[in-house]
Amino acid sequence: MHSGHSHLFIPGPTNVPEAVRQAMNVPQQDMRAADFGDLTLPLFDGLKRVFKTTEGEVMIFPGSGTSAWEAAITNTLNPGDKVLMARYGQFSTLWVKMAEMLGLEPIVVDVPWGAGVPWKEIGRILGRDKDDEIKAVFVTHNETATGVVSDIEAVRRVMDECFHEALLFVDGVSSIGSLDFRMDQWGVDLAVTGSQKGLMMPAGLGILGVSQKALAASKANTMRRAYYDFADMRQFNKDGYFPYTPPTPLLHGLRAALGLIDAEGLDNVIARHARLAEGIRRGVAAWGLDIVAEHRSLQSNTVTAVRVPDTVDAREVLRIAYEDLNCSFGSGLARLAGKVFRIGHLGSFNEGMALTALSLAELALVKAGAKVPLGAGVAAASGWLAHGAQTPDKLVLAAE
Amino acid sequence: MHSGHSHLFIPGPTNVPEAVRQAMNVPQQDMRAADFGDLTLPLFDGLKRVFKTTEGEVMIFPGSGTSAWEAAITNTLNPGDKVLMARYGQFSTLWVKMAEMLGLEPIVVDVPWGAGVPWKEIGRILGRDKDDEIKAVFVTHNETATGVVSDIEAVRRVMDECFHEALLFVDGVSSIGSLDFRMDQWGVDLAVTGSQKGLMMPAGLGILGVSQKALAASKANTMRRAYYDFADMRQFNKDGYFPYTPPTPLLHGLRAALGLIDAEGLDNVIARHARLAEGIRRGVAAWGLDIVAEHRSLQSNTVTAVRVPDTVDAREVLRIAYEDLNCSFGSGLARLAGKVFRIGHLGSFNEGMALTALSLAELALVKAGAKVPLGAGVAAASGWLAHGAQTPDKLVLAAE
Amino acid sequence: MHSGHSHLFIPGPTNVPEAVRQAMNVPQQDMRAADFGDLTLPLFDGLKRVFKTTEGEVMIFPGSGTSAWEAAITNTLNPGDKVLMARYGQFSTLWVKMAEMLGLEPIVVDVPWGAGVPWKEIGRILGRDKDDEIKAVFVTHNETATGVVSDIEAVRRVMDECFHEALLFVDGVSSIGSLDFRMDQWGVDLAVTGSQKGLMMPAGLGILGVSQKALAASKANTMRRAYYDFADMRQFNKDGYFPYTPPTPLLHGLRAALGLIDAEGLDNVIARHARLAEGIRRGVAAWGLDIVAEHRSLQSNTVTAVRVPDTVDAREVLRIAYEDLNCSFGSGLARLAGKVFRIGHLGSFNEGMALTALSLAELALVKAGAKVPLGAGVAAASGWLAHGAQTPDKLVLAAE
Amino acid sequence: MHSGHSHLFIPGPTNVPEAVRQAMNVPQQDMRAADFGDLTLPLFDGLKRVFKTTEGEVMIFPGSGTSAWEAAITNTLNPGDKVLMARYGQFSTLWVKMAEMLGLEPIVVDVPWGAGVPWKEIGRILGRDKDDEIKAVFVTHNETATGVVSDIEAVRRVMDECFHEALLFVDGVSSIGSLDFRMDQWGVDLAVTGSQKGLMMPAGLGILGVSQKALAASKANTMRRAYYDFADMRQFNKDGYFPYTPPTPLLHGLRAALGLIDAEGLDNVIARHARLAEGIRRGVAAWGLDIVAEHRSLQSNTVTAVRVPDTVDAREVLRIAYEDLNCSFGSGLARLAGKVFRIGHLGSFNEGMALTALSLAELALVKAGAKVPLGAGVAAASGWLAHGAQTPDKLVLAAE
Repeated sequence: MHSGHSHLFIPGPTNVPEAVRQAMNVPQQDMRAADFGDLTLPLFDGLKRVFKTTEGEVMIFPGSGTSAWEAAITNTLNPGDKVLMARYGQFSTLWVKMAEMLGLEPIVVDVPWGAGVPWKEIGRILGRDKDDEIKAVFVTHNETATGVVSDIEAVRRVMDECFHEALLFVDGVSSIGSLDFRMDQWGVDLAVTGSQKGLMMPAGLGILGVSQKALAASKANTMRRAYYDFADMRQFNKDGYFPYTPPTPLLHGLRAALGLIDAEGLDNVIARHARLAEGIRRGVAAWGLDIVAEHRSLQSNTVTAVRVPDTVDAREVLRIAYEDLNCSFGSGLARLAGKVFRIGHLGSFNEGMALTALSLAELALVKAGAKVPLGAGVAAASGWLAHGAQTPDKLVLAAE
Repeated sequence: MHSGHSHLFIPGPTNVPEAVRQAMNVPQQDMRAADFGDLTLPLFDGLKRVFKTTEGEVMIFPGSGTSAWEAAITNTLNPGDKVLMARYGQFSTLWVKMAEMLGLEPIVVDVPWGAGVPWKEIGRILGRDKDDEIKAVFVTHNETATGVVSDIEAVRRVMDECFHEALLFVDGVSSIGSLDFRMDQWGVDLAVTGSQKGLMMPAGLGILGVSQKALAASKANTMRRAYYDFADMRQFNKDGYFPYTPPTPLLHGLRAALGLIDAEGLDNVIARHARLAEGIRRGVAAWGLDIVAEHRSLQSNTVTAVRVPDTVDAREVLRIAYEDLNCSFGSGLARLAGKVFRIGHLGSFNEGMALTALSLAELALVKAGAKVPLGAGVAAASGWLAHGAQTPDKLVLAAE
Repeated sequence: MHSGHSHLFIPGPTNVPEAVRQAMNVPQQDMRAADFGDLTLPLFDGLKRVFKTTEGEVMIFPGSGTSAWEAAITNTLNPGDKVLMARYGQFSTLWVKMAEMLGLEPIVVDVPWGAGVPWKEIGRILGRDKDDEIKAVFVTHNETATGVVSDIEAVRRVMDECFHEALLFVDGVSSIGSLDFRMDQWGVDLAVTGSQKGLMMPAGLGILGVSQKALAASKANTMRRAYYDFADMRQFNKDGYFPYTPPTPLLHGLRAALGLIDAEGLDNVIARHARLAEGIRRGVAAWGLDIVAEHRSLQSNTVTAVRVPDTVDAREVLRIAYEDLNCSFGSGLARLAGKVFRIGHLGSFNEGMALTALSLAELALVKAGAKVPLGAGVAAASGWLAHGAQTPDKLVLAAE
Repeated sequence: MHSGHSHLFIPGPTNVPEAVRQAMNVPQQDMRAADFGDLTLPLFDGLKRVFKTTEGEVMIFPGSGTSAWEAAITNTLNPGDKVLMARYGQFSTLWVKMAEMLGLEPIVVDVPWGAGVPWKEIGRILGRDKDDEIKAVFVTHNETATGVVSDIEAVRRVMDECFHEALLFVDGVSSIGSLDFRMDQWGVDLAVTGSQKGLMMPAGLGILGVSQKALAASKANTMRRAYYDFADMRQFNKDGYFPYTPPTPLLHGLRAALGLIDAEGLDNVIARHARLAEGIRRGVAAWGLDIVAEHRSLQSNTVTAVRVPDTVDAREVLRIAYEDLNCSFGSGLARLAGKVFRIGHLGSFNEGMALTALSLAELALVKAGAKVPLGAGVAAASGWLAHGAQTPDKLVLAAE
């Protein structure tokens, strides 16, 4: 029997802003009404602003981020295609698994969990692929399992340097709308996200940015799909409709969420994530604990994976937080289970929430037996937030 | 600028009951929490009651009913499989299209829109298929485009009579939870529905009933899929989890909706649909208009497709209803466009809603130029509801 | 166990529009915040537009319409003051009772329930009151119990004709925001309403229009009050605050409701009420039943009190509607109990709702044993709505 | 443009639990329906459990806590009655003002803001009042402006010791449902609260506990009232109705809130408030700041008024919290303005919220120029919550 707010600090679904929650509190409506496009057409434009694409298109699939992964593959690649994938966390691992299930032949570059995309190695492999047998490069922009952000621009650069024709797939599920993401500038062909992270909604929509190159590929490819078929979707979308019944409350929520992002300004949203993430990291450092991301440049501004002391089971920290403190942190996934807990700090997030996360994490750690100085994390984060992080510009610099 | 309720009489998404709406008004939560199964596990049991299966399993895919169509196919059939499909409306047509897109080889039996499943012809074809080359029979239980309900039991009977091994796929999107549907008794192997019809929720969930025979088939088949993979889903579902983030507000809504069905009693729900549909049909008859379903036995208790007089464009009826009367009816789809409008009368529905639908349809018809006697439809329906439909048992009989 | 919408046709609380419902779905907030006036100050302006006053002020009391009655009296009159009141229904009766409880000495003019304000008699009494011993005239603009609208302008005229100084109190609870009401033009000094009628919100706010003359009176009067004290309220209101914690969700709802009225246009709202009320009345006439309001000019556009046949108990009609049809009509109050049921048709209301009300009333009447021709009411109303009520201007004329 | 939760730490309205928020998201309904009592009658019983009365009655007035103050006075006292009131904060001051406005003659005992009820002095005055000319004693149980809780039991004892017949009025607005309050045991005759504090709802209901002695007094008294008349209210309440339209969403919310209190257990609720308040106080002490309540025994478990350093304006702390940190604290009222900010820690409240309040207060203090050691408050509170406050029983003891 819990009193008070349930504190949610998982890296998605994230906290839904009140304006979005209000917007979703609607009765059902006719998804074939003449004016349905008044609701939906602006969503595509709004999402393109968030993806930073003017040349590409954006599609919305009822489903999850995983839906958008699958839509990206099945529309643009062919059975047996060689694809180059890097694996450095649970979600990049699952994407490899999906590629295999869908009949691709992934060339997998494994790097330690905690590292980011090995763009030099990718460059080497692509450089040797003189006949462009590799049809796509897959990169997880922000590996949610490890809290590692990767350098997509560097991947694009090495691809360009060897004039490689492969499509660039980017999993931006826990980055788009929160971290700097530039679909057009980075030459991303398939950019994947979901509704439940930076877009601040419940799960239920898989969202895909598709470049003109990817659209061209989709017209020639031979992989089977029906629900995810780009052609069907585009045919309906151009007038604001969907090939099947969409979850309209989420579309209303998306309108409100895009409105919030526009009102704050996307770059301000990104700066806010940087400012608050730095506070979280300083708090973790003050505890004397490590974070999984190995280098400062890899540390994600949306999720921080904290290594607990060897003497403590992270699952116990999570259990105490959940049962005693009405607070959810992200668990350590797969090989990180028991060693790590994750703090999600993305989406609708502010100073108070960052400090709540740190203070409850401290309390749970101590109750679980960790020798963490109570108050230290909050003190460090508060110091940063009070003194270091005065202006958006300065603070992003200061954080780096 | 509209005042008052938006009247929604489309055959889905249907009107969401207040209890379901309340239930969905929740903040986000951790879909990996230890007690998440407390929410989800009872949903599977509840859905099995609605599907009337004890031997099969039920799966919930974030997506739409179309998702569940695709999941059913990709998990149990093989590329190039011959499948026997009947086509008698827009949704059975789309299912054929999907089958083709996914690499099946449909043998299509076309019958007029307005007819139901041609089970005799299906029996003949299966009878000739001595080597069981046909791997599946696809039947649309309730063709939403025409308002035709088909006899699934008869299909099962002809399959049994020739000892055919094909899987039986049934699209129950606009029937399950509203019409008599008996997965186990009728030997349905793959039963498809969505959240936005008889389950009285917004769109966003594709729901699938899977027989043991279908599960066995899923272990041997070679069609590609990942998002829809039964094995992954079952692996997670057994503990109440999902392979990817589910839309938790919908799961809360589903719990409430199943609670409403249980409280009313599924058979009472079915009888209510029969009682109210008979009222709608008597109203249409009193207008002097035809309904698309050719025979009384084919007339659906969830949706009625009304043929407008030749002198009237059904699109104009729909436009007037929507723009002037704040009321949505279903449009005529594909070849029925302009000739038909559809009244959805399923899900959370009662006498007042049935009479509202008729009275607004009358008004829109007359404003569109149809010579319909105002009040006649309501009079006929009210007469039925006042006198004929006294008890659930009697009224179902009376309606037949 | 009811399925489907609960149909609400009582004369308040009325149906809350979705935009208002969304707006009220808010967390709590600080009612002393520096920017609280951003929410509240525009409400006063918006209400003044609805009251049609530019010279007066508007106050919002957490409470009910009855609160505003009491606030009006206790701030402007003195113990023992003679006041002239007309009694022609339950609410005018209750107002007399309140006046007595608060120590006034009402001179009560009783007229039959079904008649309106006896302005000639009021004129006669005031004309004889040469010394202005009567301090106030109380008129119920729209008597919700009988569905009678009274002629406030005529009252003002007779007051002016004898140069009488009495304050004019008007109960506009079921009129303001729905019927033509002109506080300044009619010289209303105290105009009372509540949130749950034409303002389309839940109950919880008593709202009062106060003329400059009434404000002047409030500075000299000696009646005791604290919660309702104008001076306190005005002191806080001028900066957008309240002397005690207001129900902020209702204030958000009020903002949304005023926005809807502005968007439709107040005069269009009034015309809509006239159009739909005429439909209701034609429906009742087609049943062969009488309405309580004795003359056409007295018939309210917000509520219609229908006399049931002598052989029928109106309570049984109400019971059947409620229990069997999930529909609430207003009951006959006090001396009208059992003889009358009332149809509320105000606030967020449209054609479909009017026809639903008639069709369910017919059904309940017939089930209760009344010899009412099923469908006749809907036919008559539909005929009016289809043919007679084409344009706002014409229809108001046509209705008169 | 704020992102993330609005943090609300004012002493009312308090944070509304999700279950209550869901419960209030309802359409309107007929407040005269036959089954309305199914909703309302259990509310009276539930409130009696919260007031800890079995002998008294509870009434619910649409309005605010101030409404209930007025109802208590106008129903049980007579014009010109001498009443004994203690004044030690803004709300006790306002109650005196109301008593004067309503025509009582208060004998006011002023004690410093920060002190509690001067029960010895009250005893002395009552002891000298041999003829029981003093008709009532008014005590503010928890003075929300100063965070001082007073000893009601001691007041009762001194009243009993001189066999005084005065009625005992207690303002329990910020105590009932959160602090130990025993209406019957302490012989409270009129116990006042509102919906927006310990009852965890929006404002909108004034709630009153009335002893049999007070009910008897109400039958003989001569003060004027109508809206608040006990007799009318009881006449309707006995069948579950109200004399005027109640705000039904709040009644649904109240049902949910009482359900939460029952589920947690009222004594556990009280213990939780004690535990968390002690954390807040330890945090304030760690900042080196004083709280207004002068003695440990006076320190409220629902609200803590913190004195800022002389060099800092508390209004600036509040402004920074609100504008920069999306956080509302209570302001210093009247003579405490600028010197004090208040932390509300009542109602739906937990560890995370307590730590958020402290961490944001620290940050705002530092940004406003106070020399407060960042993190110190959270450290002290966390230490208490981690180590000292293990079990409900122990922690209450430990806190004292």
